[in-house]
Amino acid sequence: MAAVTDPAQRRFVLTLQYDGSEFHGWQHQPDAVTVQSTLDDILSRLFDHPTRSAAAGRTDRGVHATGQVVTCDGPGRWTPAELGRAANALLPDSVRVSSVRDAPADFHARFSALARAYVYRVGVDPAARSPFLNRYCWPLCEPLDAAILERAAARIVGEHSFAAFAKTGQARRGDRCRVHGARWRRWNGLGFRFEVWADRFLHHMVRYLVGTMVAVARSVRPEADVGALLAGAPRVVTSPPAPPGGLFLARVYYEVEELEHDAGSERELRLPIP
Amino acid sequence: MAAVTDPAQRRFVLTLQYDGSEFHGWQHQPDAVTVQSTLDDILSRLFDHPTRSAAAGRTDRGVHATGQVVTCDGPGRWTPAELGRAANALLPDSVRVSSVRDAPADFHARFSALARAYVYRVGVDPAARSPFLNRYCWPLCEPLDAAILERAAARIVGEHSFAAFAKTGQARRGDRCRVHGARWRRWNGLGFRFEVWADRFLHHMVRYLVGTMVAVARSVRPEADVGALLAGAPRVVTSPPAPPGGLFLARVYYEVEELEHDAGSERELRLPIP
Repeated sequence: MAAVTDPAQRRFVLTLQYDGSEFHGWQHQPDAVTVQSTLDDILSRLFDHPTRSAAAGRTDRGVHATGQVVTCDGPGRWTPAELGRAANALLPDSVRVSSVRDAPADFHARFSALARAYVYRVGVDPAARSPFLNRYCWPLCEPLDAAILERAAARIVGEHSFAAFAKTGQARRGDRCRVHGARWRRWNGLGFRFEVWADRFLHHMVRYLVGTMVAVARSVRPEADVGALLAGAPRVVTSPPAPPGGLFLARVYYEVEELEHDAGSERELRLPIP
Repeated sequence: MAAVTDPAQRRFVLTLQYDGSEFHGWQHQPDAVTVQSTLDDILSRLFDHPTRSAAAGRTDRGVHATGQVVTCDGPGRWTPAELGRAANALLPDSVRVSSVRDAPADFHARFSALARAYVYRVGVDPAARSPFLNRYCWPLCEPLDAAILERAAARIVGEHSFAAFAKTGQARRGDRCRVHGARWRRWNGLGFRFEVWADRFLHHMVRYLVGTMVAVARSVRPEADVGALLAGAPRVVTSPPAPPGGLFLARVYYEVEELEHDAGSERELRLPIP
């Protein structure tokens, strides 16, 4: 997106929540309903001008967001509050704008972001198979060793190559990521939730990490494999990625202080849902 | 449903959970996808014979169930456990069989039931508008007076005519219902939940009751109207029914002891969802 030069234009930054179950991911696609195409159709109507939004994180099909951040440019006659109300009046129940603010013309949801945080939920209790939960967690319904999960999460903190934990063939910007924090927490008596902060994430990275950590915590593969995969050991293969429905883009960070606070805090990274 | 006389036949009783958001209610309809048509298609395939199930409560479009009870007849070669596994393997994510048991040939999900319990959730906190909650509560997002709610609920316990709280024109079996218990509880920091037990419910009755109780608790109409409507006072009009998404058929009772325990207990009637 080019910087706004028309003084009658204004840059907006939107925070979005969406239930990804019924969308083919964030990113615009020619013949599928995506979150971006749904939002851009509405913004284009409101602004009376073809509008293309830019998001901090491109969530895959079936992946949810409670804190996606999006920038777009629109006519100066719109105030942030009015834009939020009008967009929510037109959006389907599965997408909600939780805030709209003004942004400087050089602010970009994606390129200005310092870090993102994701939450992944794994259901251990059979109640996770409920129709009210099975699209919002991985309904694994098998016991997991909490101590192994915690050690595996601690192992991935820091700067590493995550090539083993990514869909192959797209390491244009390299495969090194700096993980600021990673930890497992109990989830509501239903199972466990993984919280992870990093400057960037490779494609499917959180799902591959969870797939392998869960395999290790079910004792179907050795605990040492997490470190071996990070070290690029030959002949060690990543477990299949965890399903998309358990994954939430929870927050995007533009301020160092906020990132340090959340990634360093002992408190749970809360999703605004139970 | 006729009693089973063929000794090779067997009556099953299923407990079902479903997310009603995408269904046109429980009841079979010629040109719409309903929970019953979805289930009966699968049972007919498994039993290799046209099968029609019978449910304890006919939930409307958009209404959910966490404890719907259904009876059906199938070949004796099926065990309850196998039927549950096979049905769950074929059902969409939005419907789940949580248990299957054998039942005597004269047991009927609807006619054998002593009482039903419904839960209705009203969101007071703006978080209720989240895409993960707005289909599973009434996202009212306005303050409610808890003491008024509690008094209104107490007022409806007992046997009354609920004609004022029903869709008109279908009082074939009369309009008197015996309400065994009714109370409001806090819901997860998000709002309030209404729990109600009765021998029978008129069409839309819980939604009309909640619509009027909420109007009273928002102080947009006098508290005395609840009693006046129950007494059939002329010129007192029921408030519009609360939206369907907040309503859950939570439990069906076939044993007096279980009903007395739940309706009389101080404990919350738990839904197997957060």
